[in-house]
Amino acid sequence: MKKTDVLVIGGSAAGFVTAATAKSNYPEKDVTIIRKEEIVMIPCGIPYVYGTSGSTDKNVLPDAGLNKLGVNIVIDEVVSVDKDSKKVKTKKGEEFEYDKLVFATGSTPAVPKWLKGTELENVFTIPKNKVYLDELMVKLKDCKKVVTVGAGFIGIEMSDELNKIGKEVTVVEMLPHILGLAFDEELAVEAEEILTSRGVKLVTGVGVKEILGDAKVKGVMLNNGDIIDADAVVLSMGYRPNVKLAEDTGVAINERGFIVADQFRRTNIEDIFAVGDCSEKRDFITGKLSGIMLASTACAEARVAGMNLYGLSSVKTFPGTIGIYSTAIGETAFGAAGLTEKQAENKGFEVVTGSFTGMDRHPGNFEDAHKQMVKLIVSKDSGIILGGEVIGGKTAGELINVIGFIIQNRMTIADLLVAQIGTQPMLTASPAAYPLIKAAEMAAKKLK
Amino acid sequence: MKKTDVLVIGGSAAGFVTAATAKSNYPEKDVTIIRKEEIVMIPCGIPYVYGTSGSTDKNVLPDAGLNKLGVNIVIDEVVSVDKDSKKVKTKKGEEFEYDKLVFATGSTPAVPKWLKGTELENVFTIPKNKVYLDELMVKLKDCKKVVTVGAGFIGIEMSDELNKIGKEVTVVEMLPHILGLAFDEELAVEAEEILTSRGVKLVTGVGVKEILGDAKVKGVMLNNGDIIDADAVVLSMGYRPNVKLAEDTGVAINERGFIVADQFRRTNIEDIFAVGDCSEKRDFITGKLSGIMLASTACAEARVAGMNLYGLSSVKTFPGTIGIYSTAIGETAFGAAGLTEKQAENKGFEVVTGSFTGMDRHPGNFEDAHKQMVKLIVSKDSGIILGGEVIGGKTAGELINVIGFIIQNRMTIADLLVAQIGTQPMLTASPAAYPLIKAAEMAAKKLK
Repeated sequence: MKKTDVLVIGGSAAGFVTAATAKSNYPEKDVTIIRKEEIVMIPCGIPYVYGTSGSTDKNVLPDAGLNKLGVNIVIDEVVSVDKDSKKVKTKKGEEFEYDKLVFATGSTPAVPKWLKGTELENVFTIPKNKVYLDELMVKLKDCKKVVTVGAGFIGIEMSDELNKIGKEVTVVEMLPHILGLAFDEELAVEAEEILTSRGVKLVTGVGVKEILGDAKVKGVMLNNGDIIDADAVVLSMGYRPNVKLAEDTGVAINERGFIVADQFRRTNIEDIFAVGDCSEKRDFITGKLSGIMLASTACAEARVAGMNLYGLSSVKTFPGTIGIYSTAIGETAFGAAGLTEKQAENKGFEVVTGSFTGMDRHPGNFEDAHKQMVKLIVSKDSGIILGGEVIGGKTAGELINVIGFIIQNRMTIADLLVAQIGTQPMLTASPAAYPLIKAAEMAAKKLK
Repeated sequence: MKKTDVLVIGGSAAGFVTAATAKSNYPEKDVTIIRKEEIVMIPCGIPYVYGTSGSTDKNVLPDAGLNKLGVNIVIDEVVSVDKDSKKVKTKKGEEFEYDKLVFATGSTPAVPKWLKGTELENVFTIPKNKVYLDELMVKLKDCKKVVTVGAGFIGIEMSDELNKIGKEVTVVEMLPHILGLAFDEELAVEAEEILTSRGVKLVTGVGVKEILGDAKVKGVMLNNGDIIDADAVVLSMGYRPNVKLAEDTGVAINERGFIVADQFRRTNIEDIFAVGDCSEKRDFITGKLSGIMLASTACAEARVAGMNLYGLSSVKTFPGTIGIYSTAIGETAFGAAGLTEKQAENKGFEVVTGSFTGMDRHPGNFEDAHKQMVKLIVSKDSGIILGGEVIGGKTAGELINVIGFIIQNRMTIADLLVAQIGTQPMLTASPAAYPLIKAAEMAAKKLK
């Protein structure tokens, strides 16, 4: 029997940050992570292993930071939790007694039961598992034609990377457009244009009926009867929260299958917390349950949990999830924060939008200048910014964080119209035509 | 006698944006700009004319936007204003009657009277004047050795650009470090290292005593007696607000020499407004008079004036200047917002700081990854962020805008600890080690 004060189950982003925050805030406490993986992958970096970085060894979330803080790392798997005696048992037969327990058990790629053929050889998912990802790397070597099912961020990033290394990639997406959960149509269409110009084939608006093959995959049959030949199929159809252990422990699970967690990331059981992909998300704007899984959100939740383990803070609370996304296709970056126009309308908001397209350098004739487009989604009754979307060069990744902070501060269009920004020819758009502010002006006109 | 509703004097960033905002908000009004320049330069782009863009023709603030809106552009110079009859006279002998008048008369390079030799041939300043800048371009062709006096942004950017095209450049700065009004020492030192590694010579902590030469400049004598040979000298010793016309009109000028202007950018005379470099600045945090001149600040003031010309808004007001600066030296960008540590202390705040250095991509081994450092300056009594500084790749230009919005929203360290950010391997730092949030953690530890 080993004793620890804080026991974190899971060692990916959420577990890592919870343990680091806990040890940093309570240096006198003993903090332990139990995780299955010998080596932890940077979750968002996984697609890039297959093209840009070339190896999982270059995509490692290092233990050094945890070691330096004095967090104990145990490579093992928790198989049961007794919430009354506050003890856990592991696969290797160890027992740990804890004072505070944190579920950071993450998520697993979704493999729909209705989909025939997912058991065939060369049908893959993208789990956060180095051993699996290394095997995938080896097996992909002999594959020429790859079909990606699902055009979310992972599906698109994987497809672009596999295209980079010479695979013939086709993406199949049931929704009318790729990245359709993050972007409004006009942005998604631009992403599609860039992706196809780079050689990736897109089939949108039609689902997959069946994966074909005998032992090995041979192709994918679509709902319209079309067949796409494939040497390999990558399923990127979303992720499911890992909640079995929590459920077995008696921790409440919400109707969307996530561990119930409050603004301090406490579950319904005293001294048990939950963070990251396995834990409940509520939309920052609507308060409704949401299914958004992002490493960055996970890290924010993890910081909140880590700071509230021993004594609650009245201000260091988690106010609900703002989906802040970004991705890059070649030199073009796409970002989104908060609600899309469509989502806002579906949720019952009357909205106006403002869009503006300029250049991300000034003058715009600089060699590395890139078109920059900003769209703002604004609540009509208050002028509060509900969401924003950006297309630009690589600086769009931080520009969407500007919009993230605008949403977090519940800023209004009036606030933006008088907002101060910093601009520089080599780094940003012009102050006289900064697309974020111009988009606010466009929205303001419609609010009049 | 011509009649116009809104008359804007000056056509650079502040005048441009005032006129555009006025016409956009009051389309039924007649809006006129009177400006001296046939062709307007993008102010911040001027240094880049001498290296990167290669010509003033590539640095033009186009009239197209104003024309499209229906703003009248008059190339002329206002020589007198009669505030009682609300009429102006121009150099070309025209008369205009106005309803609202806006001073956007800008600033002129400072040439200290005590400095001997400034009248010599090949001693230059950097005004926002295409004709002058074109002449400078021609004259610099035959110069090998250039001395830049003053290491603010314009001085540093000019020096780096002239170095790029093969000049031997020496920067002389009286303060101990370059960019010393925007950055704390540790950042300024990094900027110095990069600049010198690129071949620019720096002489800091010593002022210029005299510019030497007969008809033509031959060198610069420093206060310590050293002489630096020079074929050309560029004075970048700050700018002075152009307020003569306003003063003659009877508009109040503040003790720092700027046109007094309130939160709506109204002067002390009814129906007369002032925006941009010529108009009063008050620090956002301290409320004290300040001398910060930035095109981006000018544009924010211009939007405020343009929206408040006919009827005041209770929310679209200018809350005081936040200096948000950025610059790039090669692939490294430097940004600052709000108060530096030193400034905050000098102004009477008790502060703590937090700094963190990571990489601006994750994993950090990506080819275009760049070190990213964030420093936060925090008021000890409230935890409110007073300032921030950044070194990074080119995304630092928008990251400093994230910090700008943090300051504008008076966010605290506690707010930052639970803040949500968006991260992506190709675009940003890691969510588990995002320098902005880690810097907040470092500051939080000191606040405990």
